[in-house]
Amino acid sequence: MALGRCQHTIHEHQHHHAWDRDLTPALTVEDGASVEFDTTDASGGQLGPHSTAADLATIDFARVNPVSGPVHVLGARPGDVLEVEVLELGMTRWGWTATIPGFGLLADQFPDPWLKHWDLTPGAPSAAFADGIDVPIAPFPGTIGLAPPTPGPHATLPPHAWGGNLDTKHLTAGTKLYLPVGVDGARFSVGDTHAAQGDGEVCGTAIESRMRIALRFRVRRDRTLRFPAFETFGAAPGDRATEGSFVTTGVGPDLVGAARDAVAAMIDHLTATTALDAVEAYALCSVAADLRVHEVVDAPNWVVGAWLPHGIVRR
Amino acid sequence: MALGRCQHTIHEHQHHHAWDRDLTPALTVEDGASVEFDTTDASGGQLGPHSTAADLATIDFARVNPVSGPVHVLGARPGDVLEVEVLELGMTRWGWTATIPGFGLLADQFPDPWLKHWDLTPGAPSAAFADGIDVPIAPFPGTIGLAPPTPGPHATLPPHAWGGNLDTKHLTAGTKLYLPVGVDGARFSVGDTHAAQGDGEVCGTAIESRMRIALRFRVRRDRTLRFPAFETFGAAPGDRATEGSFVTTGVGPDLVGAARDAVAAMIDHLTATTALDAVEAYALCSVAADLRVHEVVDAPNWVVGAWLPHGIVRR
Repeated sequence: MALGRCQHTIHEHQHHHAWDRDLTPALTVEDGASVEFDTTDASGGQLGPHSTAADLATIDFARVNPVSGPVHVLGARPGDVLEVEVLELGMTRWGWTATIPGFGLLADQFPDPWLKHWDLTPGAPSAAFADGIDVPIAPFPGTIGLAPPTPGPHATLPPHAWGGNLDTKHLTAGTKLYLPVGVDGARFSVGDTHAAQGDGEVCGTAIESRMRIALRFRVRRDRTLRFPAFETFGAAPGDRATEGSFVTTGVGPDLVGAARDAVAAMIDHLTATTALDAVEAYALCSVAADLRVHEVVDAPNWVVGAWLPHGIVRR
Repeated sequence: MALGRCQHTIHEHQHHHAWDRDLTPALTVEDGASVEFDTTDASGGQLGPHSTAADLATIDFARVNPVSGPVHVLGARPGDVLEVEVLELGMTRWGWTATIPGFGLLADQFPDPWLKHWDLTPGAPSAAFADGIDVPIAPFPGTIGLAPPTPGPHATLPPHAWGGNLDTKHLTAGTKLYLPVGVDGARFSVGDTHAAQGDGEVCGTAIESRMRIALRFRVRRDRTLRFPAFETFGAAPGDRATEGSFVTTGVGPDLVGAARDAVAAMIDHLTATTALDAVEAYALCSVAADLRVHEVVDAPNWVVGAWLPHGIVRR
């Protein structure tokens, strides 16, 4: 089952701006159904191919990070797990990456708005970031989740135990996401599709791009979960681990601080060894570098690494 | 250059228990020299193949995590970078993994001492953890670093900006570690060798095992560093990414808390799907599961994943 062959379709206008258990479902499906979603981008259509960094200042944040749905899955009940199989993603040709004032791991160091447009070729393995720098493409939904059991609207920006803005780059086609169900019918929505992202999404945005996405839902009662889990099958799309990587670290008593130091060191490395300026290097980290926790037991200091695969920057 | 063919040797008795810029060097070498170190294990020889969990209670922590050296590298000065190329590691046949009361990411949940012995076959790709569960072997030094510039003794347990107990599983043969030099001669030491570890080393110990390790030193003045960096070349030894993984997550406002939740969920998964009990599952995470930071920007909640490759547990 894939794009164009799903049993149901959620169209682009069928999106909402908050998680809310009491929203009227856009669709009700049986356990086992496949659904195609025509998502909008994380700006909710407020940015386009001709937008400039100045336009970031006028974005209406109430319209940011919309999600398509909700889908009511018959039979799903609190305590169940909803399996969401990612079947296929269909890319569009334009994407954007931005630093938005006040947002991002190094927001204090990058106070100014900055916007980059991407020219994406559906099916191509990579997209050009700059001369000699190519980012592997591996599309996935940044926001994917269920309505929380607590009544009332909940912002879509932070993720929660029922999923949401997980921004987990590994949820590419072929993977399965397992979400704890909090309300009858699960009330699933998806959006914020990304063409590529590094683990951490450090500048706060990925390659943001609207897509079509085909998913299949199954109600699972053979496991219980407090938080989302997921499963990958085979090598990750765009994985360049076999090329080796350059890795910067941060070492210190605060894990977020160590992550900040690791990313700052990678920015220093990129500005010293490429033609990129600091904000470009920060954005490249956000779309292509991965944060890993190397140790979190040798008190009081932890070690975080920022990994940049060698092949991304041609030498 | 490899084991048995280095220009110099540091013997097992040439170890010390604190980083200290004023220790008498065990060896002074030229820039470019290769040195073989015969390390002791992280217990400093206090544990052996016949030790029991009860013996963990009588360990003298002043003798824990010894390092071999120091090596004075001629020409290295504060502000330089010492490149340490990991040439080869020679394993021994016995290793141990333990939970030590008060130590580890989930120390509150695992208050009792627990000890496992490993039967290691030098050159074998994996070692048996339990029936049907095999851990890929990928030896590296857990503690590798330089004397800090501040006078006096510094504990070897926490890592610092000059390296030390980085417990970074990726520093396998063929990689290069870059350490910021804080004192004349760099004053390098190494120890705490591990046969395998997951990113995070969550229970506080890896497969602890004494080894021989061959390293080459080069003084670099073409870069500056505040924290260690490293470089890998090709796929990591023991990497099972091509098999896919089962991943549990933690979602919340504290990155260490999210890591704790992810590991607790993996322990739940392992106890539900294998014959392992909880402490065995915790130890398996420490030697074979990897912590990654999936997003650290969608305030106030971050997402950490604990990754267990599919091939480790035979189905």
